[in-house]
Amino acid sequence: MIKPLAVTLGEPAGIGPDITIAMWLRRGELRLPPFYLLGDRDCIARRACALGVDLPIADVGVEEAISAFPNALPVVATGNLATADPGKPDATSAAAAVGAIRQAVSDVGAGRASAVVTNPIAKSVLYQAGFAHPGHTEFLAELARGDGAAPQPVMMLWCPSLAVVPVTIHVSLRDAIATLTTELIVSTARIVVKDLQSRLGVAAPRLAIAGLNPHAGEDGSLGTEDRSVVAPAVEILRRDGIDARGPLPADTMFHAAARKTYDCAICMYHDQALIPIKTIAFDEGVNVTLGLPFIRTSPDHGTAFDIAGTGRADPSSLIAALRLAARMTAAQPA
Amino acid sequence: MIKPLAVTLGEPAGIGPDITIAMWLRRGELRLPPFYLLGDRDCIARRACALGVDLPIADVGVEEAISAFPNALPVVATGNLATADPGKPDATSAAAAVGAIRQAVSDVGAGRASAVVTNPIAKSVLYQAGFAHPGHTEFLAELARGDGAAPQPVMMLWCPSLAVVPVTIHVSLRDAIATLTTELIVSTARIVVKDLQSRLGVAAPRLAIAGLNPHAGEDGSLGTEDRSVVAPAVEILRRDGIDARGPLPADTMFHAAARKTYDCAICMYHDQALIPIKTIAFDEGVNVTLGLPFIRTSPDHGTAFDIAGTGRADPSSLIAALRLAARMTAAQPA
Repeated sequence: MIKPLAVTLGEPAGIGPDITIAMWLRRGELRLPPFYLLGDRDCIARRACALGVDLPIADVGVEEAISAFPNALPVVATGNLATADPGKPDATSAAAAVGAIRQAVSDVGAGRASAVVTNPIAKSVLYQAGFAHPGHTEFLAELARGDGAAPQPVMMLWCPSLAVVPVTIHVSLRDAIATLTTELIVSTARIVVKDLQSRLGVAAPRLAIAGLNPHAGEDGSLGTEDRSVVAPAVEILRRDGIDARGPLPADTMFHAAARKTYDCAICMYHDQALIPIKTIAFDEGVNVTLGLPFIRTSPDHGTAFDIAGTGRADPSSLIAALRLAARMTAAQPA
Repeated sequence: MIKPLAVTLGEPAGIGPDITIAMWLRRGELRLPPFYLLGDRDCIARRACALGVDLPIADVGVEEAISAFPNALPVVATGNLATADPGKPDATSAAAAVGAIRQAVSDVGAGRASAVVTNPIAKSVLYQAGFAHPGHTEFLAELARGDGAAPQPVMMLWCPSLAVVPVTIHVSLRDAIATLTTELIVSTARIVVKDLQSRLGVAAPRLAIAGLNPHAGEDGSLGTEDRSVVAPAVEILRRDGIDARGPLPADTMFHAAARKTYDCAICMYHDQALIPIKTIAFDEGVNVTLGLPFIRTSPDHGTAFDIAGTGRADPSSLIAALRLAARMTAAQPA
């Protein structure tokens, strides 16, 4: 049975409502898979009005989303009102954003939805409201833990010609060097391999593993970590039968011909991964969380408060996220 | 009076001879500016033979190079023989490579040549022969010093849609963080501005200055250097009347729309600069040394010993280097 994709509202004052509306309007033209929005229908109705869009909204339960989808944007209530004006988060914002995420995870857990596609949240707004997780991804991992330990979530940035995974993420460059370990590279790469196999249909994933230093350390003359930290990780992965190469000089890994030689680049720090993918696919990159018991994608941009409600927000990345989630759902073993 | 460009032999066992021959063969088709090769004519003749090319060589002095150029590759002897076979540097390699560089600098200094275009050298070969400079660039700065202090050479990587300058270069990532200072960013940026004005015809250069940390430190929560080191440099440059912006998040600086907003990106470390330019212009990037009293460009690749003499070496980057040197010559104030 086909199931709909669950799209969360995100920060109500951000561009989440704008790009979700824009995405639904293009459902026929782009043959988009059916989805529903988790959030406050009045928030969506007001945003449609601000955008000058005559938007039909269907207030539905999840089970009615697919039949409603062709003729109206299906909105499933979370019980959280969202009263913020565009660009101006208010006291209802955090609960509305968090409520949608919780409900989406609950829906995929119960088998009502096929995957979770999240709109951008504003961390600072959530922190002020007492949100105790570093970000979206960690919160999803916490929701996914059930009675066991929280899984290790892995952030992958994806576009049609490149997938990258930063092993260290939102830390200073200094801390990235300090916290990089052989074990972290290995555990991250194993999750990437497992999910590329089970969710993206790549039978024998090829990993290109970047060095930390320029020229991957040039035989130790430009830094020692490539030999002492990265190379042993590649060794371990290869002993496991994984097609891993490295440490490779990062600057020559990302041109068009090089990109064809691997399925995912494992990078040592944030910008090493994000510079190349944002250089080649700025509007259509997708953020995918691997390592969770469910499929989760999101657009690769923030709340863009400055253009919320103006009609200038580009839905390309959200659309790419929706499509990738649908593709991952279809690739799953039955 | 039009002057020829001086092209150095580079490491004789590398692909320098191959790509120089290939470039000369395309002189008409690509309307290339006249150049001469500084090196051992027999080395070139042997390589042409290995490549199966029937190459006319003109043994000339610099003053005859332009008239010889249409009908033969003008070779100006340096007095150093080069006997190495392709891929196998020998005892004559280092002196041949160094001799050509010295002669090229002497030729531009004496007004016989318009600019220096250098083929790749092999540092390890030069080090074994007692070469005391970290690399090509530092050696050129030393040759340029005359009786004064050696100038600060600045490495710029250039392609038609992007120019990048790494402030720290061939050091480990750890050392890049440790050696990055406000003063170094400022002195580098000032040289970039001066040379963009005087040699690339950019009247009011716009600089985009990258942050060191992810998201340029995100207000200090992802590292302090963006505030304490980079931001003060931007301040100083702006007080000088320079159009400098930053610190900017490096991952969003290099997509096509962003690249149009500046003339040069000033980057904090090697891969931050080289990843984006090699991602978008792998075969046609040019290495330009700024801050010298003469114009010097070079292809953005190494000696490629593994394909020397096979005919598989791509002359695109050398051709781009030659053309950029010619353009910079033409842009100079009379």
